Amino acid sequence: MAMERTSSNISREDDQQNGNGEKRNTDAAELESVERIFESKKVPSWQNQLTLRAFVVSFILGILFTFIVMKLNLTTGIIPSLNVSAGLLGFFFVKTWTKFLDKSGLLKQPFTRQENTVIQTCVVATSGIAFSGGFGSYLFGMSEIIAKQSHEANAEQNTKNPSLVWMIAFLFVVSFLGLFSVVPLRKIMIIDFKLIYPSGTATAHLINSFHTPQGAKLAKKQVRALGKFFSFSFLWGFFQWFFTGGDGCGFSSFPTFGLKAYENKFFFDFSATYVGVGMICPYLINVSLLVGSILSWGIMWPLINEKKGDWYPADLKSSSLHGLQGYRVFIGIAMILGDGLYNFVKVLGHTLYGLYHQFKDHRFNPNTPITGNSPPDLPSLSYDDQKRARLFLKDQIPVWIAITGYLTIAIISAATLPHIFHQLKWYYIATIYIFAPALAFCNAYGCGLTDWSLASTYGKLAIFVIGAWVGGENGGVLAGLAACGVMMNIVATASDLTQDFKTGYMTLASPRSMFVSQVVGTAMGCVISPCVFWLFYKAFDDLGIPGSEYPAPYALVYRNMAILGVEGFSALPSRCLTLCYIFFAFAIFVNGIRDSVGNNWARFIPIPMAMAIPFYIGGYFAIDMCVGSLILYIWSRVNKAKADAFGPAVASGLICGDGIWTLPSSILALAGINPPICMKFLSRSSNIKVDSFLNP
Amino acid sequence: MAMERTSSNISREDDQQNGNGEKRNTDAAELESVERIFESKKVPSWQNQLTLRAFVVSFILGILFTFIVMKLNLTTGIIPSLNVSAGLLGFFFVKTWTKFLDKSGLLKQPFTRQENTVIQTCVVATSGIAFSGGFGSYLFGMSEIIAKQSHEANAEQNTKNPSLVWMIAFLFVVSFLGLFSVVPLRKIMIIDFKLIYPSGTATAHLINSFHTPQGAKLAKKQVRALGKFFSFSFLWGFFQWFFTGGDGCGFSSFPTFGLKAYENKFFFDFSATYVGVGMICPYLINVSLLVGSILSWGIMWPLINEKKGDWYPADLKSSSLHGLQGYRVFIGIAMILGDGLYNFVKVLGHTLYGLYHQFKDHRFNPNTPITGNSPPDLPSLSYDDQKRARLFLKDQIPVWIAITGYLTIAIISAATLPHIFHQLKWYYIATIYIFAPALAFCNAYGCGLTDWSLASTYGKLAIFVIGAWVGGENGGVLAGLAACGVMMNIVATASDLTQDFKTGYMTLASPRSMFVSQVVGTAMGCVISPCVFWLFYKAFDDLGIPGSEYPAPYALVYRNMAILGVEGFSALPSRCLTLCYIFFAFAIFVNGIRDSVGNNWARFIPIPMAMAIPFYIGGYFAIDMCVGSLILYIWSRVNKAKADAFGPAVASGLICGDGIWTLPSSILALAGINPPICMKFLSRSSNIKVDSFLNP
Repeated sequence: MAMERTSSNISREDDQQNGNGEKRNTDAAELESVERIFESKKVPSWQNQLTLRAFVVSFILGILFTFIVMKLNLTTGIIPSLNVSAGLLGFFFVKTWTKFLDKSGLLKQPFTRQENTVIQTCVVATSGIAFSGGFGSYLFGMSEIIAKQSHEANAEQNTKNPSLVWMIAFLFVVSFLGLFSVVPLRKIMIIDFKLIYPSGTATAHLINSFHTPQGAKLAKKQVRALGKFFSFSFLWGFFQWFFTGGDGCGFSSFPTFGLKAYENKFFFDFSATYVGVGMICPYLINVSLLVGSILSWGIMWPLINEKKGDWYPADLKSSSLHGLQGYRVFIGIAMILGDGLYNFVKVLGHTLYGLYHQFKDHRFNPNTPITGNSPPDLPSLSYDDQKRARLFLKDQIPVWIAITGYLTIAIISAATLPHIFHQLKWYYIATIYIFAPALAFCNAYGCGLTDWSLASTYGKLAIFVIGAWVGGENGGVLAGLAACGVMMNIVATASDLTQDFKTGYMTLASPRSMFVSQVVGTAMGCVISPCVFWLFYKAFDDLGIPGSEYPAPYALVYRNMAILGVEGFSALPSRCLTLCYIFFAFAIFVNGIRDSVGNNWARFIPIPMAMAIPFYIGGYFAIDMCVGSLILYIWSRVNKAKADAFGPAVASGLICGDGIWTLPSSILALAGINPPICMKFLSRSSNIKVDSFLNP
Repeated sequence: MAMERTSSNISREDDQQNGNGEKRNTDAAELESVERIFESKKVPSWQNQLTLRAFVVSFILGILFTFIVMKLNLTTGIIPSLNVSAGLLGFFFVKTWTKFLDKSGLLKQPFTRQENTVIQTCVVATSGIAFSGGFGSYLFGMSEIIAKQSHEANAEQNTKNPSLVWMIAFLFVVSFLGLFSVVPLRKIMIIDFKLIYPSGTATAHLINSFHTPQGAKLAKKQVRALGKFFSFSFLWGFFQWFFTGGDGCGFSSFPTFGLKAYENKFFFDFSATYVGVGMICPYLINVSLLVGSILSWGIMWPLINEKKGDWYPADLKSSSLHGLQGYRVFIGIAMILGDGLYNFVKVLGHTLYGLYHQFKDHRFNPNTPITGNSPPDLPSLSYDDQKRARLFLKDQIPVWIAITGYLTIAIISAATLPHIFHQLKWYYIATIYIFAPALAFCNAYGCGLTDWSLASTYGKLAIFVIGAWVGGENGGVLAGLAACGVMMNIVATASDLTQDFKTGYMTLASPRSMFVSQVVGTAMGCVISPCVFWLFYKAFDDLGIPGSEYPAPYALVYRNMAILGVEGFSALPSRCLTLCYIFFAFAIFVNGIRDSVGNNWARFIPIPMAMAIPFYIGGYFAIDMCVGSLILYIWSRVNKAKADAFGPAVASGLICGDGIWTLPSSILALAGINPPICMKFLSRSSNIKVDSFLNP
């Protein structure tokens, strides 16, 4: 019986592994050493992984990171992944503490990498709320300050001003749902699919390298390589900072392939983070991203742009969803939904099939995770993977707890939320909660492949669906924004925490201790984030006013989307819906092809999920990632053994250094210290104009 | 007897080697292999090194390079070293030719590296005339077009319009002098002083690597390293080009250390050439350059700038020699003259002492070169150096030929020149010819240390001295410009051709064949250059008009200097002369200290000659070179053997790639294709202004 389930799992695994076939082999050699090196170190029980000091440090770091994220929310709205910073700072805090205690003879329990992972997870859960809480987007978009700027739907029923009490209550009833929806995904994503989760993997490498026992030569060398590239990446971020004194200034706006290509978002933006991510991701993912960017920004958008005035009004702002931007967002969403749905249905089918057999053979046990409990015993698994899988599956969180928890919170939430937002009836909330796990799956899956969380995209989907359903007269704008919050919290948590589970998997942290840490972190976040926002809200009078220090650009964007949403699908530009159908079908079709042609051919067929991401964002990060791939490719051609051993360390160093740089850069920005120079890129003709303007 | 001469030579050598003590050792290991690899290849006799095909190729390349240099003359006036390009293109031309002949069975004589060097030398001699002929500076500065722009000294006696006949005649009578003054310098500079001549060394590495016999593993690897960095450097130059669409645009104006430092010429300009040069030059030279830039641009010029309005008028243009620019130029010249004079006197003393002993022992033979004929038999010399020195000293050019040639041409020249420029009396010319060899020595020496030829600086000196002597009423402006030409031709040729002799030394080319090649190349240049200039002059009506395609900026600058010159030293800004005396003495003092403290300490004392160069030009190239030093230092700390073996190849690759890029970039400019983008650096405040100007 299990034969068939297992065999189907193999096919599934191979399928997902097409992209990283080479990658896995290269990792194997390097990873094999990791757990052997740690062999001497005992893994503490899951209760012992949860120490008081870990939570104290997490609380302090949680406040720090919440400040950083909040500031980014309210200035540009672009939030980088803070996983690595959390892991690194957690280590330094506790290490200093334990060293101090050790010297004074008071140390009872040594600092382990599992404890480090617990801190990292807790901090990520805390600071994640600062992003998914929507203080720079949907939540603040409800306020009168923002409503006044959009000149539409300003009636009282469509606004709600921030207040500490309802914000904390709202976060508490929506934030824990994502956590419970992650529990059953965990094993599928990490053990069965072996998804990469680049940030999580990088963090794990970092944490492992910090805790490497003395005497491990290769590990020491790896730490040195990591340290070198960490410093390089940090200094490079620092250097870049000086030249970003204005919009469109600096290396992140470098028109590497010319100004025309830059307009179409084809450029190398010198981001050490994404070069590192590209080195960790399989080649197929990077190529898929590139194919997607060429298809969209290279071919489709320029073609649609020529229909300006025909398909959509020519006098729209470039950011208007009634224009070209609408095609970008909705076609991308359609493709992501197509791919996600295909995989969801496929996995569900396999799961149900397996369940059916288990049930038929009377071996069903609600405590067993859905897809089986025995550690995968494939001969192809490396020593590391076997050991990690064994520990990962040892401390189970029973599925009935996940289901009961989800249902309980969903019911509480559906009962409570209408009291906070009376426009959002209980059946809207129930509807969201029925579809949310599927979307959470999609997001966790996509993030595992590409490191890109599309939480806000799913949030936008909720704005449109619920907004259209409620209708403008009944407060659809506010309902849409609130629905966005509910949705975003679930899908963002799903991807963030699965990322953490990957880190936990690679550091042998117990899933149970991770889960507890996530619960604690989320609870802390639900209190810390609204308080920090409240501080900003009270401290800066001009919060949310364009041109001020904290313009919170996305708040207005989200509100405008909600206003568009209440008008329904008919508000989409001409033929956009048709194109969405086509690309939805295309995603399903390509996946079908990939599954049917077998491994040899499938590794040359791009993955639709990865292709869709640049549709909206542009191709620049795909180019960064391809550069990373190229570096790794050349390196492994020159010296395969070295590239295998040091590739992940170098990539992690690049990601971490750039990640940590966001900390001082945020502090500089908070202190009001602006970069002194603007590195500007002008066409020849406008340069002549500017020169004569500056030197008349 | 020879003991003392030899011992004095040793002390001299050690003295000069302070800077490159480490360098020489590192080179030794790498170079040792080179001549052993070539052991199997016979060195042809010097007559056989001079083939017809070599001169045909030289003629074609000479025309090509003259076009390039002429274009650069007339647009920006900055001419990079073309040695490497000449070597490379010479190889490709002849190699293709011989391969073709070989296949058709007609090849009589194989293509050797000596023949390659002959071509390179000939092309450099030809294209050198395009620069030292002053078509973008002194020669064109005599014309009425330029005279009209300076509003002073426009009388007929101070102008002379270009004409094909007098230009060719002028070049023929002045250009061969430098050639003969080089002959006695050759051995001193290359064998005794072991000067580096970075460009010459790089070219030699390139030529050697092209001709490396099959089967030499290390050499093959070196060629691959050279090729890799060659491509990198070329592509980097290509990439940079796109962003230079205007003045002060692109990587060469990158304010790496901030805008304030950029104003004081402290920045890293991303020049692959100078990073490579820094890798070839000894650490002490690079540090001296940096110390010089800090002393001048970091301390002195800002201090003098504060005296603006007191020491010199505040309303002057920044380029006026009556202001700060005057201090820069003249203090730099004073220091260079001090160092040059010290070394000249010292070497002359040693030489005369040696001669005296030779004469006393009745072994004097006019065919022997002044400082002895036997190859240096120091045990410290590597196999390569011994073999090279033996061949270099085998085919002597007798000193009496050099002296007779110099005197004959000097007399012809002094008799002819007053017919071309009647303002320039024969005694002015005679005076120049008496001092010229000393200055030629200084320039060849400085160029050997730093790769920087200061021909135009010596030319400026002639403008001032002769201009002041003749006086404005007697046509001093024109006389000064003509004197500049006479001087520049001698000193430029001296450094260029000693550079070539270094290449010849390292490729075992005979000095005799080099000399013949130089004579032929110079003769070709004397005809080709005026013809090419004539073409430009006739083709473009607005030649020399500011703002046109060919503004020839330096023509006006030189004319203005001549106008200043006729007013004498009194025209110098206040206290400039005092400062000049101080720095002249300082240079002599530092050299004295360096000679007296011994090797251990001397290697920490900067060389005044190197310190003086950034005084006028600024510190940016010193920073490039220090970056090169730093790279080599770190590399040799990480892996000494590898750094020793591949350092020179990498450096040569960097220099050559960037050098070759000047060819296509010149062709692009000739074709009127301008770079499309300007990468501009603005302060935060002016960026805000520009943004509101561009997007009102």
